[in-house]
Amino acid sequence: MAVFRAPQNPILTAGDIRPSRPDFEVIGVFNAAVARHGDEVILLLRVAERPAERRKEAVLCPMYDLDSKKIIIRPFARNDPQNDFSDPRLILRPGETYLTSISHLRLARSLDGIRFAVADAPAIQATTEYETFGVEDPRITSIDGTHYIAYVGVSPIGVTTCLASTRDFTSFERHGVIFHPDNKDVAIFPAAINGRYYALHRPHSSLFQRNDVWLAESPDLLCWGNHRHLVGTRDGLWDETRIGAGAAPVRIDEGWLEVYHGADRLHRYCLGALLLDGKRPWQVLARSERPLFEPQADYECAGFFGNVVFSCGLLLEDQTLRLYYGAADTSICYAEISLADVQKNLGL
Amino acid sequence: MAVFRAPQNPILTAGDIRPSRPDFEVIGVFNAAVARHGDEVILLLRVAERPAERRKEAVLCPMYDLDSKKIIIRPFARNDPQNDFSDPRLILRPGETYLTSISHLRLARSLDGIRFAVADAPAIQATTEYETFGVEDPRITSIDGTHYIAYVGVSPIGVTTCLASTRDFTSFERHGVIFHPDNKDVAIFPAAINGRYYALHRPHSSLFQRNDVWLAESPDLLCWGNHRHLVGTRDGLWDETRIGAGAAPVRIDEGWLEVYHGADRLHRYCLGALLLDGKRPWQVLARSERPLFEPQADYECAGFFGNVVFSCGLLLEDQTLRLYYGAADTSICYAEISLADVQKNLGL
Repeated sequence: MAVFRAPQNPILTAGDIRPSRPDFEVIGVFNAAVARHGDEVILLLRVAERPAERRKEAVLCPMYDLDSKKIIIRPFARNDPQNDFSDPRLILRPGETYLTSISHLRLARSLDGIRFAVADAPAIQATTEYETFGVEDPRITSIDGTHYIAYVGVSPIGVTTCLASTRDFTSFERHGVIFHPDNKDVAIFPAAINGRYYALHRPHSSLFQRNDVWLAESPDLLCWGNHRHLVGTRDGLWDETRIGAGAAPVRIDEGWLEVYHGADRLHRYCLGALLLDGKRPWQVLARSERPLFEPQADYECAGFFGNVVFSCGLLLEDQTLRLYYGAADTSICYAEISLADVQKNLGL
Repeated sequence: MAVFRAPQNPILTAGDIRPSRPDFEVIGVFNAAVARHGDEVILLLRVAERPAERRKEAVLCPMYDLDSKKIIIRPFARNDPQNDFSDPRLILRPGETYLTSISHLRLARSLDGIRFAVADAPAIQATTEYETFGVEDPRITSIDGTHYIAYVGVSPIGVTTCLASTRDFTSFERHGVIFHPDNKDVAIFPAAINGRYYALHRPHSSLFQRNDVWLAESPDLLCWGNHRHLVGTRDGLWDETRIGAGAAPVRIDEGWLEVYHGADRLHRYCLGALLLDGKRPWQVLARSERPLFEPQADYECAGFFGNVVFSCGLLLEDQTLRLYYGAADTSICYAEISLADVQKNLGL
């Protein structure tokens, strides 16, 4: 695949982001939603933070406190045998899970799509009981001038997908939980089809250990039903262990094009494509046998969680996919793939 | 609690049910939905079956085959170390789970609510890709003469809740998957509130190991959103490890009354009550500190899965809860509890 990576990559790193509090440090910026808004490219960044203070005797976990309405810091003693620190992203205790960082969503604006001005303060941050461990991985779908933001709310009661909307990227309205636990990787189609809205989503079945992509439909973008299993993981291929939708699907001549992520047994995350029927999006017309895009650059292979390219947003402009993607759960990068190359990858 | 158990209990056992195929045997009938239909009490029974044949060298698992459109039988060798038979309900293999029985839904009719005539053939059985391991645990909600049946579809792609409807209990219409994996214990309210339908549901969060009851709303009973966490498990109480809605809620003077099940660390399943605000059902007004009903009779304590009382259906008539319940995942029983006693249990 002929992938053009921006020579400026990574285009945004933790150092470019002002912490939301003086006692916090930004440890990563990745998995951004993208929208075209007038002359500008808007990114809604996932910014991960943790307390800047280091303590020998404890790991400090940030979490939103519903009573005081602010993020509090809870220490977990390193010498407590009930605390399992083996995954740097989590602290596991018997029957309890905590995150070592908390994410919020931050706006960034650009005229050239490469150099972004990042807002000083969060646009959407932990506020509800579904978000006490943070908000993550947004996707923007623009319909009739309203930008709908599907984002992940994480809390001890589960991993949900919530909806917010904005017309101006200045004020945001929350619409509650649209997909119950555990569900993430929700990508809403940018147009109704025969009067119904559609979304890709990724429920998790623990009994059957499945992480597949499903399709749901809705009359109003708020309530979702007629859930249909769309595509599963594929043994022996690049997407053998888990998959999930990336950006909102884009319409091309042949149908709906979805760029999705898949991981293999070694937790290597690549991007591939799905082509869905234009009028019957539950029909899969084509799927990447080989990745469209895989981690190769240094900044994709090394980082907080290496060997990861993961996209929550792209623009289809001038017959080119302008892809914003998280690299190694650490930074944001930009790449271009021609639509012709995507079509070739799909065997069209 | 003054619970009146029918002296005829169990009122339905496996021996009362004709197998759906001559080569199958019924191993249990339990967890029935209930509706009042004219003069009759209708039960929609969960009937669990397995192949009657026993083989020394293999366990035989029934499953619906989408290609041949019938239930096929797959042998799992007893001497294959990859097959884990430790839970009699399941066969676990690396990355795969199978069920040792398959359930369908069967109609039973009664004039006195105790002696039931059971249909010879299934009313709803495995038919779709969401049901290849069977259909389970129905709940009926009757609205304006239509009986809506929320039932669990089990397949290798997850545990979903599906919707069907009937006006006459003769023909049934399917409406697809209304709650994506993993979700069960869905109980739809019998009336709209301010123009919106409501349902209790029980998603499973594996990352956070939660089995709590949520509330969802809908414009049309098909698409569901605005998911709200309603009640969780309670450490040290009878419902400390898992809970789930039972029958459809019933309206009493004080609000919506829901009889739900809870299990403790010893997997003992009891029934308790929730009182939800009549106009704002997301507000919990009262909850049973002690069970309303717990396994005590022999037929509740011993069986396929002992120490279980589990209800998918009740009728509120003459100020009395007429409770149909599964005993030990084996048989169907009947009990009555006066509404006054329920109110006392709730501290009203």
